[in-house]
Amino acid sequence: MIGPIPPSERAQRARQAFEFAGPDLRGLVLFDDQFIQYYSGFVFIPTERPVALIITREGQRVLFVPRLEHEHARETGQAEEVCSYPEFPGERHPLQLLHEHLQRLGLAPGPVGVDHDGYPPVMGYSGPALSEGVSVRRVSTALDHQMALKSPHELSLIRESARWAAHAHRLLQRYTRPGLTEGEVEARATREATQAMQAALGPGFRSHNRWINGAVALYRGQIGPNSALPHAININAAFQPGDNLVTGASAGVWGYLSELERTMFLGEPTPEQRRYFQHMLALQDLALEHLGPGRTCAGVDRAVRAYCEREDLTEHWRHHVGHSLGQRIHESPFLDIGETAVLEPGMVLSVEPGLYVPGLGGFRHSDTVLITAQGVEWLTNYPRALDALVIPIEEA
Amino acid sequence: MIGPIPPSERAQRARQAFEFAGPDLRGLVLFDDQFIQYYSGFVFIPTERPVALIITREGQRVLFVPRLEHEHARETGQAEEVCSYPEFPGERHPLQLLHEHLQRLGLAPGPVGVDHDGYPPVMGYSGPALSEGVSVRRVSTALDHQMALKSPHELSLIRESARWAAHAHRLLQRYTRPGLTEGEVEARATREATQAMQAALGPGFRSHNRWINGAVALYRGQIGPNSALPHAININAAFQPGDNLVTGASAGVWGYLSELERTMFLGEPTPEQRRYFQHMLALQDLALEHLGPGRTCAGVDRAVRAYCEREDLTEHWRHHVGHSLGQRIHESPFLDIGETAVLEPGMVLSVEPGLYVPGLGGFRHSDTVLITAQGVEWLTNYPRALDALVIPIEEA
Repeated sequence: MIGPIPPSERAQRARQAFEFAGPDLRGLVLFDDQFIQYYSGFVFIPTERPVALIITREGQRVLFVPRLEHEHARETGQAEEVCSYPEFPGERHPLQLLHEHLQRLGLAPGPVGVDHDGYPPVMGYSGPALSEGVSVRRVSTALDHQMALKSPHELSLIRESARWAAHAHRLLQRYTRPGLTEGEVEARATREATQAMQAALGPGFRSHNRWINGAVALYRGQIGPNSALPHAININAAFQPGDNLVTGASAGVWGYLSELERTMFLGEPTPEQRRYFQHMLALQDLALEHLGPGRTCAGVDRAVRAYCEREDLTEHWRHHVGHSLGQRIHESPFLDIGETAVLEPGMVLSVEPGLYVPGLGGFRHSDTVLITAQGVEWLTNYPRALDALVIPIEEA
Repeated sequence: MIGPIPPSERAQRARQAFEFAGPDLRGLVLFDDQFIQYYSGFVFIPTERPVALIITREGQRVLFVPRLEHEHARETGQAEEVCSYPEFPGERHPLQLLHEHLQRLGLAPGPVGVDHDGYPPVMGYSGPALSEGVSVRRVSTALDHQMALKSPHELSLIRESARWAAHAHRLLQRYTRPGLTEGEVEARATREATQAMQAALGPGFRSHNRWINGAVALYRGQIGPNSALPHAININAAFQPGDNLVTGASAGVWGYLSELERTMFLGEPTPEQRRYFQHMLALQDLALEHLGPGRTCAGVDRAVRAYCEREDLTEHWRHHVGHSLGQRIHESPFLDIGETAVLEPGMVLSVEPGLYVPGLGGFRHSDTVLITAQGVEWLTNYPRALDALVIPIEEA
């Protein structure tokens, strides 16, 4: 199954979208590159030039692209029709031309379901709302629901991603040593893991994922005390003995990704580091216990927060337990106290409660799990226990 | 001058924003990560968790971030205040809390200038319009105008970027040979150029650019006949004798970038390839002649289109002449027939008219130029003539 999503599956998604978005809609108009990829397989570089995918109630897909993407969309997209406008801003605004296509396709005066009322502001784009010519209804959340329920083919790609994420992470762990910089170690692990993945999956293989190209393993600046910043960015740090480390690894496989993160230590951790590490591990175990079909997203987060309250850890809490993922690096629903969704079989989520101690470091594992009819299945597979995550320091 | 934009310059931008956006506004509320970086220096990973920068008429900057970014924003952002909300979706929607801050700061009931009416749809985010609590006016185009006028410090960073882009491109050209793959050659050129740049600019150096990290040189799939797709994506192609190539190179330097692209040939080009190459070179020269202070963006594009008409090349035309750039990889104004802007000193633009011949290949050079009081200054510096861009094939 390690190949692209078959055209028949994407065509079926387009038809079934109306079961999620609403049967009264005359059609859908989607501007988000991720929805466009999901329903048509067209992978492109989003810019200020609007791209839209129109889907009629009958499941007919029309890609609306700038002239410079016409051949690219026709050759690589799965749409019954590709139409293009000359350029943005151009002599006539592209959205005027889009309205003419909606008329021609019988979608005006609406209602049509949209992800955004007009093309969103990207890189200097400006333009009118779509609702200036047709009545619209926002259906992103409904389409997110469809996207959250992964098919067997999607799951096979996410599993494959998880295998290569683990490989990249093993290399990251192996190559990390004092004196080297974040950038060097990341680049080596990522390069070698990507080469191995490409060799295994063959010359026709493509990542086709907007966030993750190849198989990558990174620190993103979460090194030493800076690891206490949950979303730090690369600081090109040199590793030092005693560093508290938080990692991230993934692989892009035919549009899909997974998420694997680990807390590691460069040399033996202190008793304080051990204590937070064990609390973090207990939090992840606790979250896992609350996951399963029919259970609520909010319940998982609530259990983790209650543990933090009880153990006097709330000052080190920074974020909810996790998020869905698959094609996007973050998808809804979220494992969050304010999320109303119920977990269903086929949903894929990260489980990553974290603790962050200013001046000391961050403590977070992230694993990707699948909600099944019976319970929960781990898709990532990498050692979680402290002893396996201490990088020994060789004496000079 | 090769260091970050000084805090005083960012503070001045925040005060001067109202000269562009309108003196009647009570304040600005910006959601776009690029505007936030421009005015506050805060560089972060945008997700479904809203981040906003509020700027008052007095130039006071308030960063509104999720809890997990609080310390990060306080340590690395330049704002007079950082306030945070627990999480998204959370028990109360972050935009409700944002409205309370706008009340507290005296910005309600408005009007406030915004880049988007509410947080844009990103990775599963959903939420209300900002205008449900305060009257708003879209000012993106006005702020784009401010962003388009580069300061001396910004120009020093773009010049530095252009130097490293050229270095990365030289390595790309040197390492390209039949049998190697796109990915290998790109990775080697990018790795070595990035290492050289980091060594030259020192351990404190950061790219801090959303699109370009380090010094990169790429093919993006524009190899052989596939180079006829102006925005192709990586196809992991192996190079073959006779390939028509289109490249791209850039470097991220303290938030800023440049753009350098070349058409190259692997082995001697055919007479047909030579003919299109020379037309492309003539188009770039022609565009340059029409650039200068007080001239119109539309005029440049019109001249190029007229040449294509005259020389019977319109079927190979795919896009306008170029775009502004600096912090974003594409900024407005655009060198487009429909662009109303007039060129002003301090604007930095790509000049990249292209010709694309299905079955044969693409022909495009892109250079980055500065509009000066006197005329035009080239910021990129790389051979443009055909002979310098033929990669010799060694006989076995």
